[in-house]
Amino acid sequence: MGTVIEIAKKAKEALGPLLRLSTQEKNQILLSMAKRIALHQEAILTANKKDLAAAKTEVEQGKMAESLYHRLKLDEAKLKDIMAGIEQVASLDDPVGKITLATEMDEGLELYRVTCPLGVVGVIFEARPDALTQIASLCLKSSNAVILKGGKEAEHSNRALFTILHEAAIEGGVPSEALALLETREEVKDLLKADRYVDLIIPRGSNALVRFIQQNTSIPVLGHADGICHVYVDEAADLKKALDVCVDSKVQYPSACNAVETILIHRQSAAQFVPMLLSELKAHGVESRCDEEMIRHLKLNGTPKAVEEDWKTEYGDLIVSIKMVNDLDEAIAHINTYGSHHTEAIVTKNEKTFDRFFAEVESAGVYWNVSTRFADGFRYGFGAEVGISTGKLHPRGPVGLDGLVTYKYKIVGNGQTVSLYSGPKAKRFVHKPLKATTAK
Amino acid sequence: MGTVIEIAKKAKEALGPLLRLSTQEKNQILLSMAKRIALHQEAILTANKKDLAAAKTEVEQGKMAESLYHRLKLDEAKLKDIMAGIEQVASLDDPVGKITLATEMDEGLELYRVTCPLGVVGVIFEARPDALTQIASLCLKSSNAVILKGGKEAEHSNRALFTILHEAAIEGGVPSEALALLETREEVKDLLKADRYVDLIIPRGSNALVRFIQQNTSIPVLGHADGICHVYVDEAADLKKALDVCVDSKVQYPSACNAVETILIHRQSAAQFVPMLLSELKAHGVESRCDEEMIRHLKLNGTPKAVEEDWKTEYGDLIVSIKMVNDLDEAIAHINTYGSHHTEAIVTKNEKTFDRFFAEVESAGVYWNVSTRFADGFRYGFGAEVGISTGKLHPRGPVGLDGLVTYKYKIVGNGQTVSLYSGPKAKRFVHKPLKATTAK
Repeated sequence: MGTVIEIAKKAKEALGPLLRLSTQEKNQILLSMAKRIALHQEAILTANKKDLAAAKTEVEQGKMAESLYHRLKLDEAKLKDIMAGIEQVASLDDPVGKITLATEMDEGLELYRVTCPLGVVGVIFEARPDALTQIASLCLKSSNAVILKGGKEAEHSNRALFTILHEAAIEGGVPSEALALLETREEVKDLLKADRYVDLIIPRGSNALVRFIQQNTSIPVLGHADGICHVYVDEAADLKKALDVCVDSKVQYPSACNAVETILIHRQSAAQFVPMLLSELKAHGVESRCDEEMIRHLKLNGTPKAVEEDWKTEYGDLIVSIKMVNDLDEAIAHINTYGSHHTEAIVTKNEKTFDRFFAEVESAGVYWNVSTRFADGFRYGFGAEVGISTGKLHPRGPVGLDGLVTYKYKIVGNGQTVSLYSGPKAKRFVHKPLKATTAK
Repeated sequence: MGTVIEIAKKAKEALGPLLRLSTQEKNQILLSMAKRIALHQEAILTANKKDLAAAKTEVEQGKMAESLYHRLKLDEAKLKDIMAGIEQVASLDDPVGKITLATEMDEGLELYRVTCPLGVVGVIFEARPDALTQIASLCLKSSNAVILKGGKEAEHSNRALFTILHEAAIEGGVPSEALALLETREEVKDLLKADRYVDLIIPRGSNALVRFIQQNTSIPVLGHADGICHVYVDEAADLKKALDVCVDSKVQYPSACNAVETILIHRQSAAQFVPMLLSELKAHGVESRCDEEMIRHLKLNGTPKAVEEDWKTEYGDLIVSIKMVNDLDEAIAHINTYGSHHTEAIVTKNEKTFDRFFAEVESAGVYWNVSTRFADGFRYGFGAEVGISTGKLHPRGPVGLDGLVTYKYKIVGNGQTVSLYSGPKAKRFVHKPLKATTAK
């Protein structure tokens, strides 16, 4: 295999041949990957059993969470889902080669902005073997080379799945080096240093993993460490809707990154809404921690108190903090100060209030009267999701295939020089939009 | 003023009021900035004279380049250009609030992707006081707060210009803290650490400055350290056009980042083309350094030899390196290995050859039969330019106003929960494109 730097260099060199594959050829390979998984189902499940046996010991010794064990486990149904996932990627539009800007600079001088792959993508994921197939298929569809590093606990499963995907890829004309699997933790550190060859790192796993990666590489990282989402219940809220949105945002899947962690309530709505909310959350097994001022104001004696640390915490569990605010400004300031720029919702009947909330909250998703749980590539209609990014720049929010491409500019001419457009007799640019379909 | 962190924090807090300014209000402020520059022309030129006096001593002592002195110098004509530049920014479309995706997720549940400002932009520039007015006006137009740090050599000029812009901004309703000027070099280091408040850093200056900044901050940096651009003259090139493109790419403005540094020539074209090229370049005062193999092959005895180091060098001067290659693959590999992902051109009559060159060269601009010097925001029709970015992700290539905005997702609903779309009785998403004009 060679060192990680060599692997990354070879992946970069494989981009040319990879780019020469047509959309149809890429789709054919994806379908063949799915077929081969069906064909080699027994081998995959046998490999997975090895991982499960080791994991079981870890769980018994208290070294692994039960939930991790379940995510690791493959069975026929999960493999069916994996195959369906790959087939779905085959059915999506090819994100490469789309013209997003077309300008006639002058007669016979045309400018185009065209989508293209990022290049080499490094993916570091924990546990779930289905992450391997999902990301590998998305990278192939977007003509990116990919270097995968799965968790040690899924070692055998990952190797079995990787071998099958790799065989299908090579048979379909993908250069062998365009798809690589790393197996040791030491290699991750080298991968993070390979900024000359690796164009994007996607970490999929715990907040701690993501934070470690963000702090230890100069390569752009797609992802988010924290998901501290908020719901703000305005003074002009429909309280029935507010209740639905708050409860769904917390309860529907509390460990998801788009679950709400802090509910902000306008002082005018608090007296009526908070008792409803606390009782409904309690019925769903949620622990509510309230800020001191609200406890005093509403005489909620005995309610657990939320402190400064709570505003910064992603519980990932059936716990929520609740704070009373005096106005929209205080709500926005709280979210921009303590939030993680992931997703926030406001419940209000006042459109002007929403408009200000939308404009001034600095998060990737800002919703009006709906649950924060809608922040998801599938729900957005992107078909498949690579992850959710909380950075300011592209790709931002739930990232689908479009997040695995960037763009380059093409100018098509006929020997033109800039001298023609300079000096006292300079020709003038016309800068007229062109129909995108006339490219080249 | 307070510390840099305080200044950055206050700039962040000023974003709300800044966002509440309408397009018309922003344009009004820009026009007022231009007017005030005319009004205070004498004061600006007096301040500039102080800088020039100090600079003259530096030039005489050999501590400052003559060219830097000229860039520093303001006069009536340059101030007219500055005013025209600001007025042009006023005339451009507002980049904020554009809908770039609109999807009906379900009846009464709509998803929008909307452009929004980045937030706080830090700009570090050398010498040219016109960079201050250009970037400040672009940031205001895109509703970004901006923290400016100019070079010490332009200290008085920058302060005079800043004061005028700042007064116009405040009078027009911009919060005072949304526009700040730093004055000492120590403050730059603090600015680079203010990742909690600063969303983008734009360095405008020497390669060394840009490289220092890229290596010393975790904030995204827009820009490029090197501009090592290539022209590849294919075996199927029209040699007359190739000559025009090569000469213009080098000679039209040799110190520009988009000037060519290395010309690659297909072995089949070399015998006929190289003598023409060398003679034409010589006539323009260009020193040509040729690779050893070509010198031998074409018996160019006495021609300066290009070595490995030449392929990595941005001369920024009337020097060019020339290399003979055996085929398109070698040309692409050379560019991807030694280039800086800025801009490359191919001269060929063969469309298939261009298509492969375009797909496989990993640069922000890939041109067919035109000069590399076209890589420029004005020539692209972007109206104004913040800089040219050679990173892979957005913003890439010449960056106009569009590079100063990002996007956020809006969902507008009516109390919907994700529970409705989950489980055995799940509602299904429809995911139909909406007409963008129906937003909200």
